[in-house]
Amino acid sequence: MTSELLGLTIESVRPLDGPAIEQARELQARLTKPAGSLGALEELSERLAGLAGSCPPPLLEPAELAIFAGDHGVHAQGVTPWPQVVTAQMVGNFLAGGAAVNALARQTGVGVTVVDVGVATDVPPAKGLISAKVRAGTRDMTVEPALTRAETTAALEVGIQIAHQLIDGGARILLTGDMGIANTTASAALIAAFTGREPGLVTGYGTGIDAPTHLRKVEVIGKALSLHGHLWQNDPARDPIAVLGAVGGLEHAALAGYILGAASRRVPVILDGVIAAAAALAAAALAPDSRDAMIAGHRSVEPGADVALTRLELAPLLDLGLRLGEGTGAVLAYPVVASAVRVLHEMATFDSIDIAPAP
Amino acid sequence: MTSELLGLTIESVRPLDGPAIEQARELQARLTKPAGSLGALEELSERLAGLAGSCPPPLLEPAELAIFAGDHGVHAQGVTPWPQVVTAQMVGNFLAGGAAVNALARQTGVGVTVVDVGVATDVPPAKGLISAKVRAGTRDMTVEPALTRAETTAALEVGIQIAHQLIDGGARILLTGDMGIANTTASAALIAAFTGREPGLVTGYGTGIDAPTHLRKVEVIGKALSLHGHLWQNDPARDPIAVLGAVGGLEHAALAGYILGAASRRVPVILDGVIAAAAALAAAALAPDSRDAMIAGHRSVEPGADVALTRLELAPLLDLGLRLGEGTGAVLAYPVVASAVRVLHEMATFDSIDIAPAP
Repeated sequence: MTSELLGLTIESVRPLDGPAIEQARELQARLTKPAGSLGALEELSERLAGLAGSCPPPLLEPAELAIFAGDHGVHAQGVTPWPQVVTAQMVGNFLAGGAAVNALARQTGVGVTVVDVGVATDVPPAKGLISAKVRAGTRDMTVEPALTRAETTAALEVGIQIAHQLIDGGARILLTGDMGIANTTASAALIAAFTGREPGLVTGYGTGIDAPTHLRKVEVIGKALSLHGHLWQNDPARDPIAVLGAVGGLEHAALAGYILGAASRRVPVILDGVIAAAAALAAAALAPDSRDAMIAGHRSVEPGADVALTRLELAPLLDLGLRLGEGTGAVLAYPVVASAVRVLHEMATFDSIDIAPAP
Repeated sequence: MTSELLGLTIESVRPLDGPAIEQARELQARLTKPAGSLGALEELSERLAGLAGSCPPPLLEPAELAIFAGDHGVHAQGVTPWPQVVTAQMVGNFLAGGAAVNALARQTGVGVTVVDVGVATDVPPAKGLISAKVRAGTRDMTVEPALTRAETTAALEVGIQIAHQLIDGGARILLTGDMGIANTTASAALIAAFTGREPGLVTGYGTGIDAPTHLRKVEVIGKALSLHGHLWQNDPARDPIAVLGAVGGLEHAALAGYILGAASRRVPVILDGVIAAAAALAAAALAPDSRDAMIAGHRSVEPGADVALTRLELAPLLDLGLRLGEGTGAVLAYPVVASAVRVLHEMATFDSIDIAPAP
């Protein structure tokens, strides 16, 4: 039953609509501004028209952020100074509205939903929380695969269902958020696996670790990849679910599903930082056209994010030196994305107000 | 009378408040996020506390954009393919809400005021328009100074008065906007004069000109600087008003006054693109501490903007390839700036929710 949802979702991710892109390009040329002067917003508006299959595409509101929270068995390897319980504590902080992402979401008009897809401890029910725990944290990837295939698929399908639920509730754009102590380790492992880059080139300092911890983190990732690489025989596209399960997190799998869910409904999804970028590689491996629904919100400080976005051929909209996660970079990028569509709806054309465009 | 307002305004621009900056730094360290993880937003929040002289500084709403419109005598030198009448036509477009900046301002919640400080033709009264025409366009800078000293001062004081009016009306942050066919030529001339860089290094393609027009634009600027350079004897800081008057525009002078007016009231001002950056050099030459009230909204495609911002030691927040003007880059940056302050008001602290910060 459940893997049917994943299969159907992957099948229903389709390419962009060429005629709608062309219409948006023509409309951009008639708007009262010099051609090309809105820079990145113009190209983005054309892609969003292609995704929606109409020009102008729908205004991008309401906007909804889902923060997927999960814990990581690899935490036992000492890859971060933060205790694992902070994942659950931060979930409480999100639900109380006191985290950075809450403040930013209030500023930009983005709704926030928190999804427990794999927090190690119990999270009590609360308004704004969706309890969809697949497992209380992953296993230690240096010892065994972090997730079974069934668990990975279940987490993917949690993400698909959340995307559907938010879209059915009216959302016209989704944003990715995440919380999980040690999840930059899993992200770097996923990015190394999907891109073939050395762990040392994709592993950063996360929320702020010292040099010895960073060295250990790189070693841990290398060890996990050596242990599990045979599962995908150096070709991650053969079996992206195996890669996700071996070295990923429950929030990564859910985020990959969430992206696929958005793409299958032709709704754009703004990626936050390195966790989302790692999940996006998995989504693109499962359904290559899902890439066209993705918008890179910002350039994370984490080196793996750049590697992943380059592979996906996505240029980040913002570059503010953020390394917080939670969805903060996606939320800050949202007004730019919404503006890109809004100009197609609301700007006058040269012919409508009798200004001659420059020759 | 009028030059008294300018003198008093310049005198009342004061340095940042050190203790408030220190308080903001201490508060940032207690907020529930890894230290430094909000990147550019953290430093910005500290400066804004120093500007307001309190921590947290006031929330930055309402936000108000003033678009200063003026025409340029140098248009006669063929520096742009757009006819001069487009300035007035675009003023009409702003007032009707159909320009790019209107759509973006609606998205981000920014109020828009249009100021006719020097449009060549009559602009009929309208809601949202402030008529404060100092002169119907400047003179041709390649023949004579663009403005007399009295006209330059009058335009500076228009800007100060608009800033006061918006702040008295409740604005907690101001944004710069501009409209004026040929005003990138005046901007490049101002930037060359204030920084000593060669015209060829600070002159761009404006709204999109061809290579021969670009060459002519560089020559025109060089000619004007040769003609008027003796007025400031290679030391623009000696007499910034002379520089503004010789090669600037009415909107540049008004923007410089607007920036000074904001700084004197300790209200931050988001700079848009190259026109605002040129005006900011004039403001900083008149009152060096005014620089601390300035926020560079975005990196314009125009090379002169980078040169000016580097001189001012301001790092742009966004980099979206915009070259439209109107205030579009400032408006898109506004949610980032407002978010920087909002986190100081709304985020939980580690002690308040019993999470131990990482060691």
